[in-house]
Amino acid sequence: MIHDEIFAKTRQRFVLPEGICYLDGNSLGPLARDVPERVAQTLTAQWGEQLIGAWNTAGWVDMPGRIGDRIARLVGAPQGSIVMGDTLSIKVYQALASALHLRPERRIILSDTNNFPTDLYMAQGLIASLDQGHSLKLAVPEAVLEAIDDTVAVVMLTEVDYRTGRRHDMAAITAKAHAKGALVIWDLAHSAGAIPIDLAGTDADFAVGCTYKFLNGGPGAPAFIYVAPRLAPLVRPALSGWFGHEAPFAFDPDYRPASGIERMRVGTPPVLALAALDAALDIWDEIDMTQLRERAVALSEQFIAEVSRGLPDLVLASPRDPARRGSQVSYHFEDGFAVIQALIARGVIGDYRAPGIMRFGITPLYTNQADIEAGARALVEVIATRAWDNPRFKVKGKVT
Amino acid sequence: MIHDEIFAKTRQRFVLPEGICYLDGNSLGPLARDVPERVAQTLTAQWGEQLIGAWNTAGWVDMPGRIGDRIARLVGAPQGSIVMGDTLSIKVYQALASALHLRPERRIILSDTNNFPTDLYMAQGLIASLDQGHSLKLAVPEAVLEAIDDTVAVVMLTEVDYRTGRRHDMAAITAKAHAKGALVIWDLAHSAGAIPIDLAGTDADFAVGCTYKFLNGGPGAPAFIYVAPRLAPLVRPALSGWFGHEAPFAFDPDYRPASGIERMRVGTPPVLALAALDAALDIWDEIDMTQLRERAVALSEQFIAEVSRGLPDLVLASPRDPARRGSQVSYHFEDGFAVIQALIARGVIGDYRAPGIMRFGITPLYTNQADIEAGARALVEVIATRAWDNPRFKVKGKVT
Repeated sequence: MIHDEIFAKTRQRFVLPEGICYLDGNSLGPLARDVPERVAQTLTAQWGEQLIGAWNTAGWVDMPGRIGDRIARLVGAPQGSIVMGDTLSIKVYQALASALHLRPERRIILSDTNNFPTDLYMAQGLIASLDQGHSLKLAVPEAVLEAIDDTVAVVMLTEVDYRTGRRHDMAAITAKAHAKGALVIWDLAHSAGAIPIDLAGTDADFAVGCTYKFLNGGPGAPAFIYVAPRLAPLVRPALSGWFGHEAPFAFDPDYRPASGIERMRVGTPPVLALAALDAALDIWDEIDMTQLRERAVALSEQFIAEVSRGLPDLVLASPRDPARRGSQVSYHFEDGFAVIQALIARGVIGDYRAPGIMRFGITPLYTNQADIEAGARALVEVIATRAWDNPRFKVKGKVT
Repeated sequence: MIHDEIFAKTRQRFVLPEGICYLDGNSLGPLARDVPERVAQTLTAQWGEQLIGAWNTAGWVDMPGRIGDRIARLVGAPQGSIVMGDTLSIKVYQALASALHLRPERRIILSDTNNFPTDLYMAQGLIASLDQGHSLKLAVPEAVLEAIDDTVAVVMLTEVDYRTGRRHDMAAITAKAHAKGALVIWDLAHSAGAIPIDLAGTDADFAVGCTYKFLNGGPGAPAFIYVAPRLAPLVRPALSGWFGHEAPFAFDPDYRPASGIERMRVGTPPVLALAALDAALDIWDEIDMTQLRERAVALSEQFIAEVSRGLPDLVLASPRDPARRGSQVSYHFEDGFAVIQALIARGVIGDYRAPGIMRFGITPLYTNQADIEAGARALVEVIATRAWDNPRFKVKGKVT
């Protein structure tokens, strides 16, 4: 298969438990081998030995921008346009509050009905707090482009649908929004590290993303935010914390935003989590996103072909055209929850998203042709033999 | 000295670099010995081996409430009234937005001129975003009680002044605020793990705090937020993220807040940082806050006595009465920055806060009588001999 040599090497850099076929890197990427040692050093050689001095001597204070620059390369953003911190929900709020402030005469936030719920929730919370007559308008994903008109303040979308993997046309939507005088916020949760992205080339206004999925930063790893350099100096931060101040250690009583993207920093950076992420990102330095995408498409096509050979009637929930799909393959199946549990019992990890969606993440850094074969085979077996139809696979936990 | 036996044991539980006298635990607590192993286990045995399943099997999803309960014991809060997450700045914003919403007919946020800047900045950002005519009124700390009247929506104060250690009267201010119909937010950044606090007994409305100072959670460790159980069901979260939803994994398009304090959760919890904090908190399970406070007062009095013996003219910036002081001792000295650098060069770590404040944290868990003697002796020497008056001690870094 394409680029076998490159990705055989990257696979070696992960801890992959024996007997597990992991197709859930779109939810939580696995542990990279270098992470524990890096975190241990941060704990013992930095925090333990250097104590408070490590903010300077170990460069902790600059981590959010330095690591942001590493992610910038993967999402087509210029250096100095991304900072790390907080969670994706918080970053959505920051971007949205900033965008609304830049379009004071408009009151519509446009999103789609399939957006990840927290994005919608953060918009709802912001709208209620502002109490300025804003409203959240939802179009079905296919109708978003059409729905952009000159009443829209900001279009807020997740590029790749978390359930189906359906991909929006970032360039077309951004262009239409700009033509109508609206701003655009792209949530790259299922894009960063998954597909080539060109934030600068598409002239995106804001972008946000998490790093615990395709970027393998670890559970609850810090989020990122991008602001187009042409906009950053105009942004008024709603979450105006001291690390976004022009001079955090001057301890002035009045907030003055830092000059560029640094104003999107809020509180004290989460150093341990950033250290883990930083180690995980080392693998990405050697990756060409075009090659990764070619490999992901090949693996996805293999998965779809093998599943449809065994289960010709199983309904693909993802677009059939790889160009319209992110880096996951999803199927509709009413009892999908039980199917996923039955697969997990066999060591094949995918996940379920209500209602009725089984998701399988395609992550070339550590998933190879043999994994895809094993995963597809298990899925075919579990459904063909109705192995899922067992009470023990129907008990729902908190997180699936 | 009082409680020597108890605190000789707790001191053994920290990594304290050879030759260092650490009097800066009010800025960043040191590494507890159990932390690296706990974090390593979280990385390898949980994330590495259990992958996505660890959200349930390792209990990651419940960490914010479970660890909040551990902190509750230290701040006089009932179980189930505190959750962890985000940074202190974000938690200030949540508390403030909630409080303003509960007092819709009032427009004044009252704070003091010495409050930690990020608290003021977050208020300024919220006020500007809301654009509803709110204003931030600052009184000098001594005049806060007097300034509370029936125009005040919320009194937002840091209990212990980060520069001087001056302590507000939480009970009196809370009672006066309630008598005038205002709510109170207490920032416990320099209180939690430093002094006994009685959130329930003083009937506080909201409290927030960080865990990287006296609680030793590590650089950028997660913050906490307390909401009085009588208020939690009435709070409308401004930062309405999916982990604060009644059913995060139902993926409903509409936000419905979780029933109690859980609604103050926002995004995906920072698992690695919470694991480090959790290990650091083990030490606190054995601590009686009254005993810790007795020890802290004894150590502080020793420090003040020794410094004033050597430097009778050095101006104490902290209140002389221990009852009015948190767990630090501060002095005014115009060239304090250079003094602190000269002390650091001798292995005595305090810190400097502009303008002119030298701070020394008193942290009985790992600081003993010998440290206090060594620290006081070094301070006396550096000032008495003008050892600080050297160009190499006057170069300012980013963080001091």
